[in-house]
Amino acid sequence: MSITCEDVKKTLDWISSFGANDTGGMTRLLYTEEWLDAQKALKEKFERLGMKAEFDEIGNLKGTLEGTDGTGETIGTGSHVDTVVNGGTLDGQLGIIGGYLAIADLLETYGKPKKNLAVFSIAEEEGSRFPAVFWGSKNLFHIQNEEEVISIESIDGIRFVDAMHQCGFDFQETKDSLMDGIKQFVELHIEQGNTLEMEGKSVGVISGIVGQKRYNIQLKGEANHAGTTLMKYRHDVIQVYAQIVTESIAKAKAAGDPLVLTFGKINVKPNTVNVVPGEALFTMDCRHTDKEFLQSFTKEIENDMKRIAEEHGVKIDIDCWMDEEPVPMAEEMIEIIKASCEEQKLNYRVLHSGAGHDSQIIAKYIPTGMIFVPSIKGISHNPAEATKLEDLQQGIEALKYTLYKLAY
Amino acid sequence: MSITCEDVKKTLDWISSFGANDTGGMTRLLYTEEWLDAQKALKEKFERLGMKAEFDEIGNLKGTLEGTDGTGETIGTGSHVDTVVNGGTLDGQLGIIGGYLAIADLLETYGKPKKNLAVFSIAEEEGSRFPAVFWGSKNLFHIQNEEEVISIESIDGIRFVDAMHQCGFDFQETKDSLMDGIKQFVELHIEQGNTLEMEGKSVGVISGIVGQKRYNIQLKGEANHAGTTLMKYRHDVIQVYAQIVTESIAKAKAAGDPLVLTFGKINVKPNTVNVVPGEALFTMDCRHTDKEFLQSFTKEIENDMKRIAEEHGVKIDIDCWMDEEPVPMAEEMIEIIKASCEEQKLNYRVLHSGAGHDSQIIAKYIPTGMIFVPSIKGISHNPAEATKLEDLQQGIEALKYTLYKLAY
Repeated sequence: MSITCEDVKKTLDWISSFGANDTGGMTRLLYTEEWLDAQKALKEKFERLGMKAEFDEIGNLKGTLEGTDGTGETIGTGSHVDTVVNGGTLDGQLGIIGGYLAIADLLETYGKPKKNLAVFSIAEEEGSRFPAVFWGSKNLFHIQNEEEVISIESIDGIRFVDAMHQCGFDFQETKDSLMDGIKQFVELHIEQGNTLEMEGKSVGVISGIVGQKRYNIQLKGEANHAGTTLMKYRHDVIQVYAQIVTESIAKAKAAGDPLVLTFGKINVKPNTVNVVPGEALFTMDCRHTDKEFLQSFTKEIENDMKRIAEEHGVKIDIDCWMDEEPVPMAEEMIEIIKASCEEQKLNYRVLHSGAGHDSQIIAKYIPTGMIFVPSIKGISHNPAEATKLEDLQQGIEALKYTLYKLAY
Repeated sequence: MSITCEDVKKTLDWISSFGANDTGGMTRLLYTEEWLDAQKALKEKFERLGMKAEFDEIGNLKGTLEGTDGTGETIGTGSHVDTVVNGGTLDGQLGIIGGYLAIADLLETYGKPKKNLAVFSIAEEEGSRFPAVFWGSKNLFHIQNEEEVISIESIDGIRFVDAMHQCGFDFQETKDSLMDGIKQFVELHIEQGNTLEMEGKSVGVISGIVGQKRYNIQLKGEANHAGTTLMKYRHDVIQVYAQIVTESIAKAKAAGDPLVLTFGKINVKPNTVNVVPGEALFTMDCRHTDKEFLQSFTKEIENDMKRIAEEHGVKIDIDCWMDEEPVPMAEEMIEIIKASCEEQKLNYRVLHSGAGHDSQIIAKYIPTGMIFVPSIKGISHNPAEATKLEDLQQGIEALKYTLYKLAY
C-alpha cells in the first residue's frame, strides 16, 4: 500500500475546517473553541484507528498504537496544532496529519509494529494568542515556568489561565508526561523557506535548527531642519542606520550560507520629509547553525555598530534580547531518514532549518529528526502557504519509512 | 535712541500671549480665534503708533507710516503671523515685531521718513492647519489659485472656506493689493539652522533661498521569513534602501555646502523583527542654491537608485512631487543690508537660507532682502526655539538701519 495524494488532500481539508477563515487560511489559537474542537476531533480519529488517545493536563494530545513487543518503548512523531492569526493550512498540522496517515498506512500494510507508535498533537508552538511560545512542547518536559504565563493576557484582555480552565485544562501537577517511553522522535514540517523549491527537491532531511540572536538597537542623534542644517553639522540617525545595514549585510554575504542577517523593523522619529531624523529604533535578527560562529559574527557587527555611531556623534544602545543556541538533530536520526529517502528513491537533500520548531525542545531530551517538504515561493504564516500535493505525499512517505525502520 | 533688549522681550512676550501653549510654545493657526485676536491686536498697536492699518480681503494686515515725500513709494518689512502646531515664539512673528520696533524707533529718533514705511503681518505661511502654504504672500500678488483651496479641510474636518468666512474674510475680488507701491522689502527671520551659532555670528545677510526637490520613493521586493530565506534568495527592500542612503549621502558630502540631502521618512512593511521587509516607502529632500546643480545632482541620485534596486531584483517607483527653484535675494538689498551691518559694527556673515520664507514669493516681484538671527542649537518648530536676546536686538538693529537707508 502507499499513501495517495487524495488521502493527503482529504485529511488535510478535514483538519483545516477547524478554524478556517474566509481568506482560505486559518486561525486556530490556543485554548479557543476551534482549537478544542480540533483536538477533540483528532482524539476521536486516533481512537477510531485503534489508538489509545489521551490529553495531558495542559492539552497536549497523544495517540498511541500499541506495539507487540510489550516493552512500552515508543517512537514518536507529530507537530503543533495551533496556528498564527490568518495562517496557512500546513504549518504545524501537516506534521500531525502526516504522522497519522503514515501510522495508519503502516498498520494496514504491515500490521502492528513491534514498538509503540505515537502521534502527538502538541498544544501550542506559535505564541500567537498569548506571549508564550513552545508552551506545548515545554510542558512535555516540565520545563515551562508557570510564573511566566500565570499573569499573561491575550491582546483582547483574556487571561491565559482563564482560557486554559475554560477548555478544561490546568497547570500540570503530576510529573507524568506523554513523552514517557518515547525513544526517538521525528517531526514532519513545511520548510517555510524557498531552498528546496529553488533547488528542485521534494524532501529535506534536517541537519539541525539554527541558533538565533535578536536585537533591539536604539539610536539617538539630533533632529534638525532638513534645509537649514549643513551636512557637516548633522547627527543623522538614518545615516548611521544605513551604514550599519550596508556594511553588515556585505559581511553576512561574505560569510555565506547558512548565515542569515535581517534588519526587519525600523521606526524613525519624527519620520517627516523635511526633518533630519533624531531617533531610530531598529531590530537585527541573526541566525547560524554553528554556535561559535554566530557569537563571533554578531560580536563583530556589534563593534561595527558602535564605531559607526561614534563617527556620527550618535548615541547607540544595543540590546540583545534573544540568544538561542543552535540545536543539532541526532546523527542516528539524520542517517535513518536519509536511508529511508534513498531506499524509496525520494528526491531529497540535507539542509538546516532556519526557523524554530517543537523539535528544538524535544531534541534536547530525545534523539530527534526532522523532515521538510518545500514551501511554494517560501511563503508561510499566510493563507497562500502551499506545497505541491506530490511533495506532501513524498514527505509523508519519507516519514512513514523512517517510522517503519524505527518501530518494525 | 536704540532698541533695548527689554523692548524686544516685552513686545515678543505680548504677541506670544495670542495662542500660547502650556508647553511654553504656541499654536496660532490660520483663521482661528487666537490668530484673529493677534491680527486685531497688531492692527491696534500699529494704529497707536500713528500708522494707517488695514486688512486685505483674505486677512493680511499692513501698518503704514506715511512718509513726507508724498509719492506713495513704500519700503516694506514684516513676516507671517501664523505658527506650526506647538511651535516656538520666534518663527514668523519676530519679523512683524522686529519691523514694528524698528519703525517705532526710527520715528522716535529721526521723525517721519521720506518714503512710507510699512510693516506686514502676513496671514499664513506654514500650511499647518490647511494643506496650503504661502497663502498670505501668494494673495499679495494674486497668484493663489482659489481652486486649490476651495475644497480643502483641516485634519478635524473644518472647511477652509468656512474658517475664512467665520473670521470675516473671503477670496479677493479686487485686484488691489497691500503690496501696491512697495518698492523694496526686507524680512527679518530666525535662521532655523545652526550655522550662525556654530560660527559665532549674530546676524546673517541672506544671499538667496535654496531650491528644493522632494521625493516619495516606493520599493517593492518580497517579504520572506528571516530564518529560512538564504541571503542569495532575498529581495530585501531594506538592503536597497540602506545602500541608496549610504551612497547618496557620500555623494552629497563630496559635493559640499550648500547641498543638503535628507532621508527623513521611512515606512517598512511588515516591519517585524523576523520578516525580511517586502515593501518600503521613503522620502528624499534635496536643496541647493544653484538651480542647474540641484537638477544634475538629483538626476544622478535617481539613476543610482534605479541601478541599486535593479541589482537586488526590487521594483522602484520614484515620484518627485516638489521641485521649487532657488530664489536669489536682490543684489542691491544684499549690499544695503551688509553696509548697515558694517556701519553698525554688527557681527554678521552672508549665508543662504535652507528653508522657505515669504520672501521667496515676494522676491519674484519686488527687490527683496532677508536678515537672519541665530537659532540656538538650530531648533525651530518646537517650544525650545530660542535666540539670545542680544542677537535678537542686533538683528532688529540691522533691519532698522536698512529701513533707514531705504526710506530716509
